Amino acid sequence: MAAKQSSFDLNHFLASRTESVNRALDKFLPSEKTKPATIHRAMRYSLFAGGKRMRPAVLLAAAEACGGSDAAAMPLACAVECIHTYSLIHDDLPAMDNDDFRRGKPTNHKVFGEGIAVLAGDALLTQAFEIAAQAKGWPRYPHRDLILELARASGSLQLVAGQVADLEGEGKKLSVAELRYIHERKTSALLCCSVRLGGMSANCTPAQLAALTDFGYHVGLAFQVIDDILDVTQTSEQLGKTAGKDVAVQKATYPAIVGLEKSRKIAAQLTAKAFGALDIFKGKAVALEALAEFLLKREK
Amino acid sequence: MAAKQSSFDLNHFLASRTESVNRALDKFLPSEKTKPATIHRAMRYSLFAGGKRMRPAVLLAAAEACGGSDAAAMPLACAVECIHTYSLIHDDLPAMDNDDFRRGKPTNHKVFGEGIAVLAGDALLTQAFEIAAQAKGWPRYPHRDLILELARASGSLQLVAGQVADLEGEGKKLSVAELRYIHERKTSALLCCSVRLGGMSANCTPAQLAALTDFGYHVGLAFQVIDDILDVTQTSEQLGKTAGKDVAVQKATYPAIVGLEKSRKIAAQLTAKAFGALDIFKGKAVALEALAEFLLKREK
Repeated sequence: MAAKQSSFDLNHFLASRTESVNRALDKFLPSEKTKPATIHRAMRYSLFAGGKRMRPAVLLAAAEACGGSDAAAMPLACAVECIHTYSLIHDDLPAMDNDDFRRGKPTNHKVFGEGIAVLAGDALLTQAFEIAAQAKGWPRYPHRDLILELARASGSLQLVAGQVADLEGEGKKLSVAELRYIHERKTSALLCCSVRLGGMSANCTPAQLAALTDFGYHVGLAFQVIDDILDVTQTSEQLGKTAGKDVAVQKATYPAIVGLEKSRKIAAQLTAKAFGALDIFKGKAVALEALAEFLLKREK
Repeated sequence: MAAKQSSFDLNHFLASRTESVNRALDKFLPSEKTKPATIHRAMRYSLFAGGKRMRPAVLLAAAEACGGSDAAAMPLACAVECIHTYSLIHDDLPAMDNDDFRRGKPTNHKVFGEGIAVLAGDALLTQAFEIAAQAKGWPRYPHRDLILELARASGSLQLVAGQVADLEGEGKKLSVAELRYIHERKTSALLCCSVRLGGMSANCTPAQLAALTDFGYHVGLAFQVIDDILDVTQTSEQLGKTAGKDVAVQKATYPAIVGLEKSRKIAAQLTAKAFGALDIFKGKAVALEALAEFLLKREK
């Protein structure tokens, strides 16, 4: 595996895709001057706050693994990033996680006030569907299916369900199964949706879509376990957000339930499963493989 | 006009369509027992709180005026009602209008707490697109266009823009033009979108769509002017929500800016324009005509 990836420049891939995604998002979103200016400034503030564009990256990488083009995948990549950003804005609200900082910057409601922060989240969620509708459909994957895919991953059975369970789990002693329920919904659902949409934008085969689903599910879970680990092992400065917060609010995390060592093992196992899912691409999913390695080795 | 409508039983139309819409919404929404139960109880609490189903009603009436079926229009009717309900839940939040009662019942955040109320709104907004995607598309009005229609009417240039301008206008002296800007976005946009989607579900002609757009725009504006009038002329008991609230928070309203008498005249003029727009249907838009009359004569 290491040999396969040695020729692949992940840094270049991430930098160039981030730039393309940012350019596309800038085009899709109304300008800061568009009336009412407050809402567009608030939407752009969080959307261009230095996010890692991990979901767009896996979406574009999945499209490439299936022989698709960035152009066809781009509206969907922008849509998932809008969904991700909206969920962070609402998650940071005082009534939810009550976070003052995100990516080293004051959170949306700290800058624009709670009312506008709620509305900026609402507007980004709505914008996501407006952008996704502009993607190219295929007879096998018509617009209907693309919208359903995005809505289901973001709705009350997935992304929102994860937030709810997370909110209700605070201060409670959760089992590993309960914690996994939260992670599957809070992180895995949208990551899995991202790789699936990437495949769909490339008119992938049903077998490829199944492999991408398997990959996305496991990478998403690993990603969240690592987030938990980093919260206890890194400083606020390293993370660009308040470290040790999970412990402070007695949030259930993998390290809290099974310990740090076992958490690292679980993350590694999940990533191995993700890699296994990519076998079907016979070496063509280099970007996806490199991304999975990167997600496991990241330090913030 | 009165003679034309004498044979049309609006009460029967509203009762039967409300029942169909409620049945369809009940089918589309996850049950109260579906995990996580809290979010589905919160979504259903506001969705089934006795709303007048005015947007679904005009959507279904528009579909009928164009020779369409309720079955084809129903997913879109449910989608606009989900959007409307989400906007009310978020609008009632302490950070926004800070309302304790809505339709005679405690508001969502009063029952479920602010965090869940934010998420219930998010989930209903997402659900709207999931439901809309399940509507039947036509070559002239494919899914892409239906989703774009819904997203644009609900996004940062329309519905959300209205909320923002409303929020920023509180306590300020607004001109009639500024007030109309708010009304066009806060109420007219989604009402106009509703009648347009009704027509699109019926595969209407471009001329019919233009007439419906004209109708929806004017009925929406009239609807909001009447809302303002009722706030100063009715009691909380009659309205089922806190009356006199606009005056209390010094909100700009038509009665506050131009007086009650002129506000009533404006509402009547807007409705006359709406009626004029229906001429193209040559008497086939009886339900839409009756609805417009009802909206002008309503007392809550």
